[in-house]
Amino acid sequence: MDCGSFTLSEADIIAFASQYDPQPFHVDPVGAKDGPYGGLIASGWHTVSATMRKLVEFYVSAESGLGAAGVDEIRWPRPVRPGDTLHVRATVLEARRSSSKPDRGIVRGTVEVTNQDGDVAMTLTAINFVLLRDPSA
Amino acid sequence: MDCGSFTLSEADIIAFASQYDPQPFHVDPVGAKDGPYGGLIASGWHTVSATMRKLVEFYVSAESGLGAAGVDEIRWPRPVRPGDTLHVRATVLEARRSSSKPDRGIVRGTVEVTNQDGDVAMTLTAINFVLLRDPSA
Repeated sequence: MDCGSFTLSEADIIAFASQYDPQPFHVDPVGAKDGPYGGLIASGWHTVSATMRKLVEFYVSAESGLGAAGVDEIRWPRPVRPGDTLHVRATVLEARRSSSKPDRGIVRGTVEVTNQDGDVAMTLTAINFVLLRDPSA
Repeated sequence: MDCGSFTLSEADIIAFASQYDPQPFHVDPVGAKDGPYGGLIASGWHTVSATMRKLVEFYVSAESGLGAAGVDEIRWPRPVRPGDTLHVRATVLEARRSSSKPDRGIVRGTVEVTNQDGDVAMTLTAINFVLLRDPSA
């Protein structure tokens, strides 16, 4: 499922990281030039949070979504730089009824975020709870 | 390693979730009372981002930290509510030299966040890159 795209500006990246992940290569654009990434990059938590926004808009149901139990295997194979256009795709892997709570289902899905060059910037697998439309079915 | 504690206020929770995770139980304190959690709860991404702040303060080295390759098995077994005091502990599981880049090491560690009642609110496993102090050693 196509979940649209987003862009993080240099100011966005610095604002998020100043509050939540103030490592030099996330907050200091001048110093970051001599750092391990050759420039400022977004916190991985910023990328995942901005991705979540797109998932809420396109993928998570406001009526039946019950939140996430957890997330497996977040990978950031390529850094996210200011101005990158990041495209979000979500794919359902598995949907089954909860054995302990029969009015809900458990949906396992993968999310892939690619940049404007087609390089994968982030992947993750999420485990979400949903209310069943008809628990008696 | 003790990494201190943090608290998210109702205003903090709503501000983060309005931008990044606008599901009803994260942004609407009145509606959330009738929702699946019986009240407003923090976005899991907010909890993880606020935890990251403590890890940068106490655990990640500003001199040798090179960022994270990824994170495994984030779990949110209990919701985080406004005013909860959340305590962060990090434990190194494994540290080894990178086989592809011999000037760096790869550190695998777990992070556990517990609330004021001693209940576990979040766990995760992170895989971080670090520069070696003496690559010739």
